[in-house]
Amino acid sequence: MPDRLTATAIARDLAAGRRSAEDVFDATLDVIQRREPALRAFAFFDPELARAQAWAIDASADRGTRGALAGVPVTVKDVIATKDMPTGHNTARYAGAMTGVDAACVDTLRQSGAVILSKSVTTEFAATQRGAMTRNPHDAARTPGGSSSGSAAAVAAGMATIGLGTQTGGSTIRPASFNGVWGWKPSWGAISREGLKLYSLTCDTIGFYARDPADFTLLADVFDLDPAPEPAQVRGLRIGVVRPPLWGQVAPAMRTALARSAEQLRAAGAEVSDVTLPEIFDGIDAAHAAILLREGRAAFLNEDRAQGAALHPEFRAMVANTAGQTPQEARAAYRCADACRAAMDELLAGYDAVIAPSACGEAPVGLDSTGDPSMNGLWTLMSVPVVSIPGFTGPAGMPMGISVITRRFTDRTALAAARLIAGEIGGAIAAEESAEDSAEASSAA
Amino acid sequence: MPDRLTATAIARDLAAGRRSAEDVFDATLDVIQRREPALRAFAFFDPELARAQAWAIDASADRGTRGALAGVPVTVKDVIATKDMPTGHNTARYAGAMTGVDAACVDTLRQSGAVILSKSVTTEFAATQRGAMTRNPHDAARTPGGSSSGSAAAVAAGMATIGLGTQTGGSTIRPASFNGVWGWKPSWGAISREGLKLYSLTCDTIGFYARDPADFTLLADVFDLDPAPEPAQVRGLRIGVVRPPLWGQVAPAMRTALARSAEQLRAAGAEVSDVTLPEIFDGIDAAHAAILLREGRAAFLNEDRAQGAALHPEFRAMVANTAGQTPQEARAAYRCADACRAAMDELLAGYDAVIAPSACGEAPVGLDSTGDPSMNGLWTLMSVPVVSIPGFTGPAGMPMGISVITRRFTDRTALAAARLIAGEIGGAIAAEESAEDSAEASSAA
Repeated sequence: MPDRLTATAIARDLAAGRRSAEDVFDATLDVIQRREPALRAFAFFDPELARAQAWAIDASADRGTRGALAGVPVTVKDVIATKDMPTGHNTARYAGAMTGVDAACVDTLRQSGAVILSKSVTTEFAATQRGAMTRNPHDAARTPGGSSSGSAAAVAAGMATIGLGTQTGGSTIRPASFNGVWGWKPSWGAISREGLKLYSLTCDTIGFYARDPADFTLLADVFDLDPAPEPAQVRGLRIGVVRPPLWGQVAPAMRTALARSAEQLRAAGAEVSDVTLPEIFDGIDAAHAAILLREGRAAFLNEDRAQGAALHPEFRAMVANTAGQTPQEARAAYRCADACRAAMDELLAGYDAVIAPSACGEAPVGLDSTGDPSMNGLWTLMSVPVVSIPGFTGPAGMPMGISVITRRFTDRTALAAARLIAGEIGGAIAAEESAEDSAEASSAA
Repeated sequence: MPDRLTATAIARDLAAGRRSAEDVFDATLDVIQRREPALRAFAFFDPELARAQAWAIDASADRGTRGALAGVPVTVKDVIATKDMPTGHNTARYAGAMTGVDAACVDTLRQSGAVILSKSVTTEFAATQRGAMTRNPHDAARTPGGSSSGSAAAVAAGMATIGLGTQTGGSTIRPASFNGVWGWKPSWGAISREGLKLYSLTCDTIGFYARDPADFTLLADVFDLDPAPEPAQVRGLRIGVVRPPLWGQVAPAMRTALARSAEQLRAAGAEVSDVTLPEIFDGIDAAHAAILLREGRAAFLNEDRAQGAALHPEFRAMVANTAGQTPQEARAAYRCADACRAAMDELLAGYDAVIAPSACGEAPVGLDSTGDPSMNGLWTLMSVPVVSIPGFTGPAGMPMGISVITRRFTDRTALAAARLIAGEIGGAIAAEESAEDSAEASSAA
């Protein structure tokens, strides 16, 4: 079953000679042919280009030097540069545009033997909720989230083994939750962002999707992430439960999922406690928005100058600073973010990991919006690693994920903790049950 | 005289029909032909490619819509992507490499009518002191500084009107000082860094060279920088004098230049006072080095994987983290930087501008090293705008510059203050005079 074909399994099978890279590609192509016409996850896919990469892997004489990701099909969000495929940013000006050079992360993946399979659909410049025509593999009437819409949907549907995304607000973790796949936003600065379309220097981060957390560990090795403590059992783990400042946006079913996760972890022997964020965090979401405005204004200036009226009014307004943001307001936003980052680092030092919602609830109906990123901006701005565990099902039968967060540059701790936590949490949440838990939560608050 | 041909003068002459873009190009080409063989400032120059741009400007019917930089020859540091010229990073792997797409800043300059003239020499990946063969136009036996070696030397020699550089440590401001030209490192985040080779996300900033500060104001308009107070006279200006933590590296002549600047400004009616940096700044240069190590490790991973032993050991050691930097040490460095940024913002609020050395002294003899960046890392890490004023001459007859610094996102204040300050400071510093002032400075300390 190709939708069960993990990077770890591919690595094992190729090493043992039980499967070739071309076998993997053929199995993947079969899924693509069945599902892509309805899902529309890919912005570019040339089967022969991908197959040629698989052949090259199979032809390499020495299995030992093929790389840790030999033959693993990777789909790349279409705001990430690829030397052999166009990088279109879902915008007219760059339709078919070739960059000549790979993004640093794609370069590293190629050196590790990955098959760069396809480009996947993004919202325009990964900086808006508009424009992704991809459908959610669990319900074609719903969005897969965004802006990494295509990568998340493709991995969920088995059309790729690994998906590359980006996150500036909640563009990796929210789609992971909506599509029922694993998502990982690494620590800011731990993996090169060179070759990603720029929106916000402070927030833009590469992100990954997989169907198994072991694949993230493989990626952590490939990208040479720092060693960090890797917990071995849930018993005794100090787990904090965070209700982010925009908790009011969270749907009853997700409130239930978080509460139930806490109970399930407590039952498994973890030391679970609620986290109260210091008061300074009351301003964090406004600071995030202000920083995106300030940095987006610089990032899209050239598009405004080059495209004029052809550029969407959303970007033109950002560049024109129609909001009238002053330098003083921008400085205040950075100061808030800097102070919160220090406070968060101190706070996270008291836990092995904290958990929080990966999204506000299930994927909404319709493709006009990619859903509410309110649960994600905080963590993005804090530069910390976030791993989203799939596992809950909401009242509409859609997947929901829980985020595991640790201190900056301890991605391996987050990955190990998430694997352990995933073994204890999850389940279906009925409508009446979530209403009840929500009432409890409200009365407790 | 083409070496007096400023962007402001070109704009005026073209608007008045007194000169064509091709005239400007021809005058510039004449200087290039005379000086480039000895200076070696350019990594790529195709006269016909540049001339075609000038023709296109001259052919455009409406002078009013040509853009603020119509016909202005701009040389681009060879770590900045250009769609019509190779971007080589002064490293074998990218010799002749085409990027297909312009860096955002180049895109914006083209939309403003600039002639993208040439690529100028950088040290390898703008991340080392090695490899720039460019000579200082004031003394061929000396370095022009780096890593923006070629852009600074080209503007100094009159081979281009505007030079594009980058700064991660002191790569824009130090060469400005060494070559006797104006240098400007804008506030971090105010101008898009998309399409610049990545070394340090936290520090990399675009930089500019010009022979007249009015050209920077023109660039500030083109890049739509925030409005900010622009002082109109030196009298009454509150000027702080900063001796950065690595003051021990500063040569006597530069100490004299800073002390004399303070006197000259005081004589002109400014309120000049010494700034004492809070104690937390004692760790700022170590934090800068730690952040460059952490971010460079991620930035050059793909080069290490792709190039193996062909990559210079300097980069391989960074990627391999042979220094053994821990996540904890990296977090501490960021926390120090964040805390200093807040403290600096508060401190700068008490002055209209502060002044500091642009380099440790005159350009050193030899091309093996691009000189000591100790005076620059502080300001780069603080994200603040820095404008380097030329004007002093050291005992060896080489130029020396003084930096003007203001709060983040008040680049227009820094530019206006620098123009005023430039009118008051400068002069030749004799060897015996600098020794004397140095003795005074030592006994005072």
